[in-house]
Amino acid sequence: MRNLKLTMRYDGTDFYGWQRQPGCRTVQDTLEVTLATLTVEPGIRVQASGRTDSGVHALGQVGNFVTHCRIPTDVFPRALNKMLPDDLSILECVEMPESFNANRDAVRKLYRYVMHDAPARDPLMRRYSCHSNAPLDGAVMHRAAQVLHGTHDFHSFETEWPNRKSSIRTIHHIAVSRMGEYLWLDVEADGFLYNMVRAIAGTLMNIGRGHWPESDMARIIAAEDRREAGPTAPAQGLFLIRVTYA
Amino acid sequence: MRNLKLTMRYDGTDFYGWQRQPGCRTVQDTLEVTLATLTVEPGIRVQASGRTDSGVHALGQVGNFVTHCRIPTDVFPRALNKMLPDDLSILECVEMPESFNANRDAVRKLYRYVMHDAPARDPLMRRYSCHSNAPLDGAVMHRAAQVLHGTHDFHSFETEWPNRKSSIRTIHHIAVSRMGEYLWLDVEADGFLYNMVRAIAGTLMNIGRGHWPESDMARIIAAEDRREAGPTAPAQGLFLIRVTYA
Repeated sequence: MRNLKLTMRYDGTDFYGWQRQPGCRTVQDTLEVTLATLTVEPGIRVQASGRTDSGVHALGQVGNFVTHCRIPTDVFPRALNKMLPDDLSILECVEMPESFNANRDAVRKLYRYVMHDAPARDPLMRRYSCHSNAPLDGAVMHRAAQVLHGTHDFHSFETEWPNRKSSIRTIHHIAVSRMGEYLWLDVEADGFLYNMVRAIAGTLMNIGRGHWPESDMARIIAAEDRREAGPTAPAQGLFLIRVTYA
Repeated sequence: MRNLKLTMRYDGTDFYGWQRQPGCRTVQDTLEVTLATLTVEPGIRVQASGRTDSGVHALGQVGNFVTHCRIPTDVFPRALNKMLPDDLSILECVEMPESFNANRDAVRKLYRYVMHDAPARDPLMRRYSCHSNAPLDGAVMHRAAQVLHGTHDFHSFETEWPNRKSSIRTIHHIAVSRMGEYLWLDVEADGFLYNMVRAIAGTLMNIGRGHWPESDMARIIAAEDRREAGPTAPAQGLFLIRVTYA
């Protein structure tokens, strides 16, 4: 048996997220059906580094699967890409030790949330960013975000999920930077709670447009109460950029 | 009567190009219907700097129209953007002298053609670039493109159009540059023939992948025969970037 690691990119617009769901077009389903055809192994299952929600994009999602198939690793991406729809693409395939698990072994993930604050919407980026009618002060947002750096209970930025053991996570890097009419919020952490980056983005947008003071961020995280933070920003601005393994 | 100039951006994916056509969703139709509603002037007509074809995008298309409507110019973009579909956006509205005509008065246009040559397709750019399976040598493409600089008969790069008077145009700037896995072909000229940038892009891609020698460009333009040039590259890689007026 071989344990193969895939790095993949997808446009989340037309997927109901990563995870298999009856009657829905998901990334996992699309990939597993294609892998089953290619390897002639009907029950093939892909373990991802983590779920992405409906409408969320990935530049570098990682998954692994176990197979008897002897296709060389460098042929896998080409062969799969010929069969996959054009909103999902395999960038790389690498053989891993038997013990490798893309979910359990991930030590860091980097997400990016893209905001646009020109007065007029950008038709070419409507699927890949969140438009703000009001101008956003990126410098204020960056400073406010630094409060979240380090190890904290992020319960204020979590859409509750049953049986979640702990809301404590460590953010290794968080930054807001502007490029022209676009702002990027980058967050790299050891793990993420459900909707965590989108809740941080919604909170920072409230601060960036002057609706809330910069100092609110410390109060919000201390509250450990989701109602204190801003709204969950829409899915189409969010990208899973990179997953790091030890 | 006021003569108003609009600068607009659109995602060409779901439009059958700029020009009004019965039974088709075009940019001109979509804009004119919305303008007619806003101004309460049913016969309103927009003159663009030029047509763009089905699937071609615009970052800065320009058009003008004549109206009795007294809405201030700074209110026009906001009011129109609230009514327009999200693949068309108005960036600016400026009042011009009565004589201004967006087509006739355009002195230069800049088009960009975007190519991608990573081994795997990029799902997020599939609507906004042309993928090449083979690597492209951007430096060779740039040098070959310089043959087209200046005033020439571009008949070899023209899909023939009835009653076109002359195929002579002046290219003021032409360059191929690479950014990571993407290559941009920029062409700024006093005017363009039908499918001209896409025929230049298709020719340069043949040269860039080593299929044709760099020196072929001089022979192709001298031939004044469309059959000598490369294929018309697909529409989704082409962007009208900017229109310049005197």
